[in-house]
Amino acid sequence: MRDITIAIDAMGGDHGPHVTVKAALAFLRREVDVNIVLVGLQDAIAAELKAHRAAVGPRLRIHHASEVVKMDDALAVALRGKKDSSMRVTADLVKRGEADAGVSAGNTGALMAVSRFVLKTLPGIDRPAIATTLPSRRGKTYMLDLGANVDCEPEHLYQFGVMGAALVAAVEHKERPSVGLLNIGEEEIKGNDVVKRAADLLRASPLNFHGNVEGDDIYQGTVDVVVCDGFVGNVALKTSEGLAKLIADQLRGEFRRNPLTRLAGLAALPVLRAFKRKLDPRRYNGASLLGLNGVIIKSHGSADAFSFEQAVAKAAEEVRGGLLRRIAEQIGAHRIQPEQGEPA
Amino acid sequence: MRDITIAIDAMGGDHGPHVTVKAALAFLRREVDVNIVLVGLQDAIAAELKAHRAAVGPRLRIHHASEVVKMDDALAVALRGKKDSSMRVTADLVKRGEADAGVSAGNTGALMAVSRFVLKTLPGIDRPAIATTLPSRRGKTYMLDLGANVDCEPEHLYQFGVMGAALVAAVEHKERPSVGLLNIGEEEIKGNDVVKRAADLLRASPLNFHGNVEGDDIYQGTVDVVVCDGFVGNVALKTSEGLAKLIADQLRGEFRRNPLTRLAGLAALPVLRAFKRKLDPRRYNGASLLGLNGVIIKSHGSADAFSFEQAVAKAAEEVRGGLLRRIAEQIGAHRIQPEQGEPA
Repeated sequence: MRDITIAIDAMGGDHGPHVTVKAALAFLRREVDVNIVLVGLQDAIAAELKAHRAAVGPRLRIHHASEVVKMDDALAVALRGKKDSSMRVTADLVKRGEADAGVSAGNTGALMAVSRFVLKTLPGIDRPAIATTLPSRRGKTYMLDLGANVDCEPEHLYQFGVMGAALVAAVEHKERPSVGLLNIGEEEIKGNDVVKRAADLLRASPLNFHGNVEGDDIYQGTVDVVVCDGFVGNVALKTSEGLAKLIADQLRGEFRRNPLTRLAGLAALPVLRAFKRKLDPRRYNGASLLGLNGVIIKSHGSADAFSFEQAVAKAAEEVRGGLLRRIAEQIGAHRIQPEQGEPA
Repeated sequence: MRDITIAIDAMGGDHGPHVTVKAALAFLRREVDVNIVLVGLQDAIAAELKAHRAAVGPRLRIHHASEVVKMDDALAVALRGKKDSSMRVTADLVKRGEADAGVSAGNTGALMAVSRFVLKTLPGIDRPAIATTLPSRRGKTYMLDLGANVDCEPEHLYQFGVMGAALVAAVEHKERPSVGLLNIGEEEIKGNDVVKRAADLLRASPLNFHGNVEGDDIYQGTVDVVVCDGFVGNVALKTSEGLAKLIADQLRGEFRRNPLTRLAGLAALPVLRAFKRKLDPRRYNGASLLGLNGVIIKSHGSADAFSFEQAVAKAAEEVRGGLLRRIAEQIGAHRIQPEQGEPA
């Protein structure tokens, strides 16, 4: 297997190089056939490397970029105002083939806009989408779109299905992942018009289409890929984050109620820690910007080094799994097939 | 305060009279100024009363209805095929003023269709909506719509806001409850077109409109009322149910891993029980069918007697709080006010 190169927007996220450089060094130690380009302010990155007693070398280099996209910069600023931003230059490196993938913890909207502007979409894909994994009873569920597209046509949902299936095939090595369409009832008559027509498209495609799924199926692990528009996906994701936080806080609160419950908490501590580890959102960090002509991973802005490293690992997995080729092939195959008659 | 009368569809839900009659008897013991009419098959209800050594009397009577709407009956069957169903007759009693409210654990779609057909909507309300409460950091959050309306216009979302605020005012005795519009970002530019225009309507109304909220705000308790279309609301609700189930199962699994963790679980048992009680969905049972010209509460189909009793209690609270009058007043007030200029 040939070495792959990952460009990291070293300045993105709440913690900048402090987190991204540490994560890059950890990832280089863990993986031998990966090279990393740290993109951003030369001095800041060099200082951080020095703090870790590390240095540039054949597998690690710095690519200077003089500007930084801030979390609250307007899209126009990220797109047109800061042409030498670490985010933009990261995408440029991917575009020029100097990197196989890019990773950034910067603002999601800015990263999507910049990546789309620089890389364009793959042939047959109208709109890129944001995909991530959520823990499920059977392992994990891939879900898209999570907020890039608030008003979707049936064709977009269908394309999300193709991209999600290609993603699972690429990184989970599962050749015919099942795809479900998020709806408010399993019956075909339910749901709004867009979802109903998307179901028709998915049913007529060669995808392994399971049919409609409901909100609880995400965590049940009923299908490998759950497809929905970005409004619904974003609400489902943030509602889940809110509920998980509430439950964790209530549980903590109950154990802190009095000395007796504190003692019980002490006894239960190893179990509670194992439980926490299992559902730790840091382990699931890294959302895929799918449909672009390049692999781009968005890390959570508040990611720590461990969490950011998971996002870098996702980028490497997608490159190794041939994600772009798979999406291009499948969208091509799916476009032709329905005209030739009902596929099996 | 005058006595109120609640009609109960005794045949609805997974367990029928076995649950509904027991819940009715418990509620009558708890509340002295409520009368109950049990609607359904005379013999089945009488047998259940006998099993509880109870009998009809001035506060409890049976109203025979010869048919039962099954959970999987088509809407047309519930609406036109079974005119003497316990569900339909329950709504009829409310319509005729023989009961102040109706409660059913039957199929949601059928109950909404039958109730709307029999009771009609309140003046100024285009579409009824389903509202329920979810636990939050600050107590509870009211949310609507949860699935009655999958394709909403801005005016509908605005009406949901009015109805939700009236509900909170009626049952929580809070005169200016805050209303949030579920969106995918707090910034006004975010969201789809319908949500943006709904925000304009809400902002121009005399409602205490907080602005946009996100999924995690539901559990954060940021506002009293969260407004969304039925597709999004249903997904958020079912996603939450799925996640809560997954977390509960994972936690249980961790405590059952080995003898040591089982011992820890034993020590933590009282705490875990208190925690479970706090988030127990049975305590939150009872969804309000809002916007009808009558108070109708839908109980979860699988409710046990404790849970069904909570739904009956909700019906009584809505009647006592003057829910219908409040909705009618507010929708009237809100219709006129914007024309008179920007309200405070």
